[in-house]
Amino acid sequence: MGVTLAGIYDQVGDAWREPVNAPNGGYTQVSVDGVALSALESDVRSHRQTLHFREARFERETVFAVNGKTLTLKSERFLSARTPHLGVIRFSVGCDHAADVVIRTGIDANIWDLNGPHLREIAGDSRDGVLLVQGVTHEQRKRVLVAEVAAPAAGEGADGAVRSEEEIVQEGGRMLRVVMLRAEPGKTYTFEKYFAVFTDNDRTGVPLVKAAIETVQEARAAGYEGCRRAHHDAWAARWRRCDVKIDGDDEAQHALRYSILQLLMVAPVEGSANSIPARALSGQVYKGAVFWDTEMFMYPFFLHTYPEKAVELLRYRIRTLEGARRKARMEGPGYRGAFYAWESQETGDDACSYFNIGDPITGRELRTHFRDKQVHISGDVAIALWRYFEVTGDDTLLREGGAEVILECARFYYSYAHFKQDRGRYEILDVIGPDEYHERVNNNAFTNAVVRETFAIANAVVAHFERKHPAELKALLEKLAIADELPCFADAAERLYVPAPDEKTGVIEQFDGYWKLRDATVEELKAKMVHPNEYLGAGQGLAVPTKLIKQADVVMMLNLFGSRYSADVKKANWHYYEPRTEHGSSLSACAYAIVATECGELDAAYRYFLKTAKIDLEGKYKIYVGTTFIGGTHPAANGGAWMTAVFGFGGLRVEEDGIRIEPRLPENWRRLEFGLEHRGDRFRIRLAREAVEIAAAEENRNEHAFFVRGEKVRCAAGKRVLVEFAIDDPSVRSK
Amino acid sequence: MGVTLAGIYDQVGDAWREPVNAPNGGYTQVSVDGVALSALESDVRSHRQTLHFREARFERETVFAVNGKTLTLKSERFLSARTPHLGVIRFSVGCDHAADVVIRTGIDANIWDLNGPHLREIAGDSRDGVLLVQGVTHEQRKRVLVAEVAAPAAGEGADGAVRSEEEIVQEGGRMLRVVMLRAEPGKTYTFEKYFAVFTDNDRTGVPLVKAAIETVQEARAAGYEGCRRAHHDAWAARWRRCDVKIDGDDEAQHALRYSILQLLMVAPVEGSANSIPARALSGQVYKGAVFWDTEMFMYPFFLHTYPEKAVELLRYRIRTLEGARRKARMEGPGYRGAFYAWESQETGDDACSYFNIGDPITGRELRTHFRDKQVHISGDVAIALWRYFEVTGDDTLLREGGAEVILECARFYYSYAHFKQDRGRYEILDVIGPDEYHERVNNNAFTNAVVRETFAIANAVVAHFERKHPAELKALLEKLAIADELPCFADAAERLYVPAPDEKTGVIEQFDGYWKLRDATVEELKAKMVHPNEYLGAGQGLAVPTKLIKQADVVMMLNLFGSRYSADVKKANWHYYEPRTEHGSSLSACAYAIVATECGELDAAYRYFLKTAKIDLEGKYKIYVGTTFIGGTHPAANGGAWMTAVFGFGGLRVEEDGIRIEPRLPENWRRLEFGLEHRGDRFRIRLAREAVEIAAAEENRNEHAFFVRGEKVRCAAGKRVLVEFAIDDPSVRSK
Repeated sequence: MGVTLAGIYDQVGDAWREPVNAPNGGYTQVSVDGVALSALESDVRSHRQTLHFREARFERETVFAVNGKTLTLKSERFLSARTPHLGVIRFSVGCDHAADVVIRTGIDANIWDLNGPHLREIAGDSRDGVLLVQGVTHEQRKRVLVAEVAAPAAGEGADGAVRSEEEIVQEGGRMLRVVMLRAEPGKTYTFEKYFAVFTDNDRTGVPLVKAAIETVQEARAAGYEGCRRAHHDAWAARWRRCDVKIDGDDEAQHALRYSILQLLMVAPVEGSANSIPARALSGQVYKGAVFWDTEMFMYPFFLHTYPEKAVELLRYRIRTLEGARRKARMEGPGYRGAFYAWESQETGDDACSYFNIGDPITGRELRTHFRDKQVHISGDVAIALWRYFEVTGDDTLLREGGAEVILECARFYYSYAHFKQDRGRYEILDVIGPDEYHERVNNNAFTNAVVRETFAIANAVVAHFERKHPAELKALLEKLAIADELPCFADAAERLYVPAPDEKTGVIEQFDGYWKLRDATVEELKAKMVHPNEYLGAGQGLAVPTKLIKQADVVMMLNLFGSRYSADVKKANWHYYEPRTEHGSSLSACAYAIVATECGELDAAYRYFLKTAKIDLEGKYKIYVGTTFIGGTHPAANGGAWMTAVFGFGGLRVEEDGIRIEPRLPENWRRLEFGLEHRGDRFRIRLAREAVEIAAAEENRNEHAFFVRGEKVRCAAGKRVLVEFAIDDPSVRSK
Repeated sequence: MGVTLAGIYDQVGDAWREPVNAPNGGYTQVSVDGVALSALESDVRSHRQTLHFREARFERETVFAVNGKTLTLKSERFLSARTPHLGVIRFSVGCDHAADVVIRTGIDANIWDLNGPHLREIAGDSRDGVLLVQGVTHEQRKRVLVAEVAAPAAGEGADGAVRSEEEIVQEGGRMLRVVMLRAEPGKTYTFEKYFAVFTDNDRTGVPLVKAAIETVQEARAAGYEGCRRAHHDAWAARWRRCDVKIDGDDEAQHALRYSILQLLMVAPVEGSANSIPARALSGQVYKGAVFWDTEMFMYPFFLHTYPEKAVELLRYRIRTLEGARRKARMEGPGYRGAFYAWESQETGDDACSYFNIGDPITGRELRTHFRDKQVHISGDVAIALWRYFEVTGDDTLLREGGAEVILECARFYYSYAHFKQDRGRYEILDVIGPDEYHERVNNNAFTNAVVRETFAIANAVVAHFERKHPAELKALLEKLAIADELPCFADAAERLYVPAPDEKTGVIEQFDGYWKLRDATVEELKAKMVHPNEYLGAGQGLAVPTKLIKQADVVMMLNLFGSRYSADVKKANWHYYEPRTEHGSSLSACAYAIVATECGELDAAYRYFLKTAKIDLEGKYKIYVGTTFIGGTHPAANGGAWMTAVFGFGGLRVEEDGIRIEPRLPENWRRLEFGLEHRGDRFRIRLAREAVEIAAAEENRNEHAFFVRGEKVRCAAGKRVLVEFAIDDPSVRSK
């Protein structure tokens, strides 16, 4: 069991900086008649494991054969949704013959790290039966502390069989309690175990040791069932807000709920101002770094169902603004404002290296430009911040640093932009767009659109503050000494070039010169590979001189700025780029899925939806880029699955004047139901083939406008609105 | 013997377009007692070959042992400097025993080509004893025709020994005359042979066959000695103008004269409007293409000693303007004007491919940006054109297309440039400077300086025409529809950014971000090589992330714009960049040599001078870049040797108000003497350690101003001026 921590990072030597793994408070080792059991090495007769979506609880049952005896080991565990630092485990052992069983359970500090070990000065201790292990990180000397308590459960045979007093031992980096029992045939011996993890990042108000001991002692007092009930209730509340129900398609339902479960599990604890790394907390891969994945793929789910979590994601960016400023200055020359990190850790400095991919052919590190040229990241952050205000109507975040972030992002872009005198337009040169196989391109449509939007948002922020918070605006402009630059932002919002659809074909050129590249299929390039993990981009990769793209790029733009492009343009671009896309990123399929729903390609949309939603269930993704391992979970794809269901098939679009719903369900979906939070009020939306029902929560404060297939309806607190329609004849009834 | 033609190119299939080799009119095969002789395969007892610099005549003597007999074969040959199409050969054979000798001499159409064969429809013929072979190129069906005539020389034993009438045979792509003779011991049998090569490019006024036959028949009538005398006289006239004498250093003298000989041999025939390829006519390497090498390294020699040849080089660029316009349109988007080809052939279209270097590690073609990003080439052309006017005072070339070229080059640069609003300056982005190991850089100092100069020259051209040829200017501006753009050029000449010397160190950053690269030595990179020929540049080459540069770049700029930078700045940059330069190009050493003379580094200057001047004598240069063979002669280095002698050690600088001379001779040079042509008048300049003598030709039309070590003197026709100086006390006397 790896316990990868959120928001605490460490670097050892010259290796990559990465998140720290805590000592394993869930450690348990069972021996039977002197033989240690191992699911990997012992004679395992059966093994079953279950993840309960409803309450994020993991169960496992393994049957071992040892010396002619059959031993059954069961465990269930969860990380408490009610008590953030707490992990709860119940495990049991039973044998068909009498046997001597030794259980060694406690905390294991022998942690495997990609680039570790990260903890030193490891110290073990025990106080009043609570085991403690702590260590400090190399780089910043941050303390990581784990407390644990475990005991036989009340009930059948639990105590009687224990042959010795529990003994506490410290051995080889482990603090363990050793329990010996004589198991009687057919009886089950159950134990409960509680552990808590705290770090110096946790502002507990009391000493860490005290907080950790209290956490496990309180949990023990509540007992396993007590803890589980609280956990279950917390999850029930989450699901009430966030669940999406699909009638008629169990496969899609299962995959989508799995995706939502993942997102809810890794959502930052409220008040932490943490964000979600690209591989979530599934390990140390990708340096535990936060990418644009969060704002563009995960954030919409939270924004529309669970804005408290969206707030944390945004606060993380506000909190790391200084790192983004440092990065702009460092990447220069002449860059100003905020250039957010491509791979962001706790300070906002960039964890991405200039040589980020190993070449398996030469063994050399390849120069990539993810770090210095993938400039759309700043705009992605600005758009997410502004979108929060648009959707929630709440400008608190803007006032608490969001406006500053936006102005600094616009400032960065102005310092990055060039003006083309003979064409009377600003251009954004030398970037990488979403498609990372084509580095250092000019006028990437996606990037330019994001940059122009950032300037427009900066202007809108200033206008909003002028109206609502003039004094704060004045103070902010003075603090940033930016008043003189505002006319530049206005000019750039007006004159920044965004590649337009071709007049004849409607297709948008991904970047200057893309049309000139040669066509190539994935199969053709694969046939030329010298090494199976060879990277297709980075200057001389096989895809670089071709039209083959790694992931949705123009199509991602059509997705992000969906209301600005006609269905015809979407269709033209979808059909042009789809056969030219490798989907070498987990961010790609959902973009194609969503746009496909808008241009009548429902079968393709459904295919891409399943690909996105099942990515971690099926494990069909690249696990190596060059020499770099990139396996783990894919929370952006999880977010993409939700977006495809709700924005795509549901046709939900939240706009200034109301909420648009354009259902376009796959043929086998009888009904789609999802929760929506909008401007502090909540709804359940149910879509069927010929009707849409909107149910407003009793507690809602306002009536809201909806446009169902273009028909405007209003829905007040506690009301349900049903819009029924024959194919082209919607009729509206209120209940 | 390869006869690589100037100005005629062909492409076969998908292989590189390259110059055409003519059928070999010098073909001779000698057999003794039925055994064919070969310098490569026979038993060669001695072999001696001599190149006579004075008249560009090649001599060879080979002694063979065959069946116990010793046979001596001598030949001498030259390409007539008087009669452009004519080759003249005299060969003789002698044996120490009686022997049956068969001589097969004629024209061989079995030509080895890099990417051929280029001639098809090969046809042989003979008329009145003249052999003829012709063929047509694949691509453009251009005819290439060779005529030959050969006969025993008058004199001892020549005729008597001939046992049979000469027989003309056609066999396997050869037209041959077969001569059998019974050689008597100790006698020498001499033959004379004349061949002529014509192509459809030659505007002879008569049918090609007639022209060719007449050429060889006239030569035969004049006889070997007659032809040689004419050739010799033509060369004597060349040397009178162009020779550089070095007293006290035979090694330098020899290498420098060899360099000048090479330049004079490959100089375009007057009226041809041809230029000189990077490997001259030594073969088909580098596609027989003309690079910036010509304008920046070879042209100054001709401009200052033999302007008629300089005219041809410039006319070549005027003639290929349309190709440069096509290239601008093609490379787009939005490029206008003239973007000269990086590798230019007869049409001015670019022979450089986007994948110009093979990677020996993967066997793939590497994407290089020589073609699309090495934009300084247009400015190099514009500077050369304007320089011609500055030095000669003759604006004919400007009026005959030169002004149009310059305006179109400025127009191209304006369409390429971007304006940085927040810095109030134009920038030139995404280029390759002279240092090709760093592709796609921004604000390369050399390139930006060349571009700014081009705008300034465009403005100066307009001003000159306004004053002198207003009607022509009006017509030109109308033809180009460019009048509206002139204020843009003026603005760009004013506000284009050229990186300045660092205020503290005086060093100029080669391009944006160069300072951030890591330092590396050539040795360090070589130790990392996986393949000995692997290319160090092109995106992922070993030099790319380092400060190691291929060749002079900033130092080349200091050389080109020498009068704009102080000696201190030159010194600082020379010392900074010199240890960071691989000299992986033959263009590098001379730039370091010249600047070294200006900053007191005479020993280093001398070392680099010898390296440049001896490059083809020693053969110490790369012959492979990646998988591409790049061997051949190095006329740019030859030009660089002349520049180092005259501009460097001689300190010659031709400026608006007069000719500056600042001698700084290497210690072992007692005297340096060179010819100079200036504004149509000629001089011999003699520099000694403590005196400078300027001798004006009798025919000169004007008196000219000279500044010798800052002291102004004037020199009228037929006069000699001697400026003597003690170390710091020059005194001036006129004779």
